[in-house]
Amino acid sequence: MSVEKKVFRSGPYADLIAQGVQAGESLYLSGQVGMREDGSTPDNIVEQVTVAYANIASVLAEFGATMDNIVDETFLVTDVTEAMTNLEAIFAARQQAYGQRPDVTQTLIGVAALLLPELKIEIKCVAHL
Amino acid sequence: MSVEKKVFRSGPYADLIAQGVQAGESLYLSGQVGMREDGSTPDNIVEQVTVAYANIASVLAEFGATMDNIVDETFLVTDVTEAMTNLEAIFAARQQAYGQRPDVTQTLIGVAALLLPELKIEIKCVAHL
Amino acid sequence: MSVEKKVFRSGPYADLIAQGVQAGESLYLSGQVGMREDGSTPDNIVEQVTVAYANIASVLAEFGATMDNIVDETFLVTDVTEAMTNLEAIFAARQQAYGQRPDVTQTLIGVAALLLPELKIEIKCVAHL
Repeated sequence: MSVEKKVFRSGPYADLIAQGVQAGESLYLSGQVGMREDGSTPDNIVEQVTVAYANIASVLAEFGATMDNIVDETFLVTDVTEAMTNLEAIFAARQQAYGQRPDVTQTLIGVAALLLPELKIEIKCVAHL
Repeated sequence: MSVEKKVFRSGPYADLIAQGVQAGESLYLSGQVGMREDGSTPDNIVEQVTVAYANIASVLAEFGATMDNIVDETFLVTDVTEAMTNLEAIFAARQQAYGQRPDVTQTLIGVAALLLPELKIEIKCVAHL
Repeated sequence: MSVEKKVFRSGPYADLIAQGVQAGESLYLSGQVGMREDGSTPDNIVEQVTVAYANIASVLAEFGATMDNIVDETFLVTDVTEAMTNLEAIFAARQQAYGQRPDVTQTLIGVAALLLPELKIEIKCVAHL
């Protein structure tokens, strides 16, 4: 059974994984982290959230979509206590990224590790087009 | 690209996240935990499962849906050994919540932490309408 | 609100969970692990990846689908360092399973535990038909 996909690749793992795949009205994004294009990562979890959402918006743009198209988020954090302590600032950065109160579900999970030790958060999104 | 969403918010984080978002025929739910409306949480993982499913059913009802609409579950548990030891009772509570043998996929993951230390399980569901 | 599902069950947990559920054009798969049908599990993470993809392909086949139908993957690993050390071999095994460079998004998460202690990786997929 064949499936028509629209695919976007970028970054250091472009040969291995896609950053976004659309099939039908569903758009899946690979988990995005707070690493800038130059490979640097801010120390602060709040700044990592801001960079991660900038990366998410870049992927969405390749599909003609915006943050409004996101329906579901999974927040993967390496330190739930740190995330809860910074909850207000994290959600302020999130609202800034969305430009308004997001109509989005969210699940927050404390993970054992992310891809690189400097990463404090990874955000996995599903969008609808 | 605009997207039409149906959104349900409730609980202490209603200003931050939605508990359910429907776009097209897909309905995403935020991970639901075993905390009752009065803020109390049973100690036992099996009772937490029962409360979590009651919360899931409440969200579904806002979309005119029932447990039958669920297609996929992720079980996030803080102690896999405890979950496996109570497997029979957990799945009995689950079958009770569904009212029949559920036609649902499931992935069980041992997480490092959930939002609050008293939580032993969080259930993230996707439904189809 | 009723929903039409196509359901596939197999294996030791067939009475409890489905291995695949299709609703509309979306096909959800339960997380698949590197355990062979005879219950044995290879020690090596790369071999576990190969077995897990064989299990995924078996589930897809029940829906008339192939690896091409997969749109999104979550890699759940118990040891991120081990996964990163074996990255090249893991992705070679993955490309072998797909038969070509996969047009698939991926999120890699370090988990605290999987269902059984011998499991090093679990792969959760969403497909589109």
